[in-house]
Amino acid sequence: MTDTATLPAGALPQGATIGILGGGQLGRMLSVAASRLGFKTCIFEPAGDCPASHVANYHFKAAYDDADALLNFARSVDVVSYEFENIPTAALDLIQDHSTIRPGRAALSTSQDRLTEKNFLSGLGLRTAPYADITDLASLTKALETFGTPAILKTRRFGYDGKGQVRINDISEAAAALEAVQGAPCVLEGFVPFSCEISVIAARSPSGEVVCYDPGENVHSDGILRTTTVPSTVPAPQRMDAVLMAAKILNALEYVGVMGLELFVTPTGLVVNEIAPRVHNSGHWTQNGCTTCQFEQHIRAIAGWPLGDGTRHSDVRMENLIGDDMDRLPALLGSNAAVHLYGKADVKTGRKMGHVNFITP
Amino acid sequence: MTDTATLPAGALPQGATIGILGGGQLGRMLSVAASRLGFKTCIFEPAGDCPASHVANYHFKAAYDDADALLNFARSVDVVSYEFENIPTAALDLIQDHSTIRPGRAALSTSQDRLTEKNFLSGLGLRTAPYADITDLASLTKALETFGTPAILKTRRFGYDGKGQVRINDISEAAAALEAVQGAPCVLEGFVPFSCEISVIAARSPSGEVVCYDPGENVHSDGILRTTTVPSTVPAPQRMDAVLMAAKILNALEYVGVMGLELFVTPTGLVVNEIAPRVHNSGHWTQNGCTTCQFEQHIRAIAGWPLGDGTRHSDVRMENLIGDDMDRLPALLGSNAAVHLYGKADVKTGRKMGHVNFITP
Repeated sequence: MTDTATLPAGALPQGATIGILGGGQLGRMLSVAASRLGFKTCIFEPAGDCPASHVANYHFKAAYDDADALLNFARSVDVVSYEFENIPTAALDLIQDHSTIRPGRAALSTSQDRLTEKNFLSGLGLRTAPYADITDLASLTKALETFGTPAILKTRRFGYDGKGQVRINDISEAAAALEAVQGAPCVLEGFVPFSCEISVIAARSPSGEVVCYDPGENVHSDGILRTTTVPSTVPAPQRMDAVLMAAKILNALEYVGVMGLELFVTPTGLVVNEIAPRVHNSGHWTQNGCTTCQFEQHIRAIAGWPLGDGTRHSDVRMENLIGDDMDRLPALLGSNAAVHLYGKADVKTGRKMGHVNFITP
Repeated sequence: MTDTATLPAGALPQGATIGILGGGQLGRMLSVAASRLGFKTCIFEPAGDCPASHVANYHFKAAYDDADALLNFARSVDVVSYEFENIPTAALDLIQDHSTIRPGRAALSTSQDRLTEKNFLSGLGLRTAPYADITDLASLTKALETFGTPAILKTRRFGYDGKGQVRINDISEAAAALEAVQGAPCVLEGFVPFSCEISVIAARSPSGEVVCYDPGENVHSDGILRTTTVPSTVPAPQRMDAVLMAAKILNALEYVGVMGLELFVTPTGLVVNEIAPRVHNSGHWTQNGCTTCQFEQHIRAIAGWPLGDGTRHSDVRMENLIGDDMDRLPALLGSNAAVHLYGKADVKTGRKMGHVNFITP
């Protein structure tokens, strides 16, 4: 590219305002990345003193069903993105008449519902865990007979960090499991014997350019991500498969922005766990492992700017700081690790307070 | 250090508020670094819509002689720092009764006045350009006769980016030079035949711990920094000398925070050009060359937190984007460089709009 290059058609100008639904740590780090590119940011988040508001130009402190606030928000920004996928459909309906939503509605409606998501993935020819639509005890019993146990009953909507999930170890637990999800529409997922989980953080621009980061290897406990390590232990050809699967999904959704794709590594190949239409906890390592991190990549994509260089220059192990992990802060500050804190006032059990990137050049 | 370590005595707690005098790009990048460590930030800056206000929690938009605003600012923050050294003494007098100022008054009063600074450096046994206190044409003529020409007449106070300086090529220009500085107290600096300029970015904690970054090599034009390159072409023993000089200055001033030290490399050794009691343009490369950048290092120091790892993991060439350099933005975004923009609305000749770090791992 020469010095006479121009920004792509439709690119946001310098100083435009990026709107973000959600004011948690992902919104916070998106705001910081947007500022690095000279953009202003506007957060929509019901909670006051939220992590993203500390580093944003504006904060609409209003509920997601406050139509006036949503309209004002949509009118005062140049593009709308989000840090979580469970945004009420009515809110999106209001916003879309006044601003561009990126990633678009297709990505959101697909990932908001586990059944829709699995049907979509299967339709692309990608493997998922065996799954079944569960509407009552009869359908659950039938699915358990087919898949065997253990299996996991998951609410179709509003699940995150292991919430909205019940593990079923024996078919006799079926009724109790249904009770635990309080009649919410569900899918049953059969057990996938996997050796590890990896995730691909991938970005797509409005013109269809795709950039993927090196897949990281994830370790969870209690349903919450604990560590992501790059490079993963997965052989190079399988890492390449993972990247191609991510690209296939991005293109099918005409996606704009960064997506997180979680994959199980099994003896017979890769199985999709789930997709997240946003920056992802398992991509935090990119902040210290790449020139362009996932947050800046997302901002570049939704602004219609050229995607950045996602080449990994260092080996990284990302570790989440959850609840009492904060007691380790003084020791971590004295190490050669990169510490990232979210500005949350109270330490609570299970609460993500920050993360650390341990780097080996 | 073990996992049972605690923060040093006097360290600011999680969520404390950092006050910063000045709302330009240095304040902006300090705010972002503070947020990464979970701190809130409060900017004091007379101009509205200033770069730092975009990423800060609070913005006192008031003049530096607004005593009420200064007192409110000082009372609402846990420590006060600054992004420029020419803060009116009266403002500091008001603030210091209500908050800790870091770096302290000694660093400020020394660096605010070129004559005081040069006397201080000479007193430490460090070499400076030959200099003389200039009060009138007689003292100027005498100094020019001693140093020869070319020489540079500099106002003792309020100089930056080449402002407040007049080059004197012949003794006959003495009267015109004095007229150009409009009777401001001045020093005359004799010519130093240097092969290049390097700068050391160094940090000191309240307990006296010192961390220095690898000295970078600077290229100026029209009195404004254009590029900084690490590693420099200067041999390792001289780089070590530079680091030791920085440490000597930090300790003598009982300095807390990050300092920039500019040095001329001459055939007979290193000569101090000037010191800046703050993060420095020539340290921007650390954002993409080190785990802990100069901005985070400054925040760690003034918060009384352990200093971070300043080891350089990559080779970097930092290039300022000044005025029309912004025309290169599309091409730069398409390269593998790291782009940092300051959110300034208008492109003006000579205005620092951003910078770019070109990285080789």
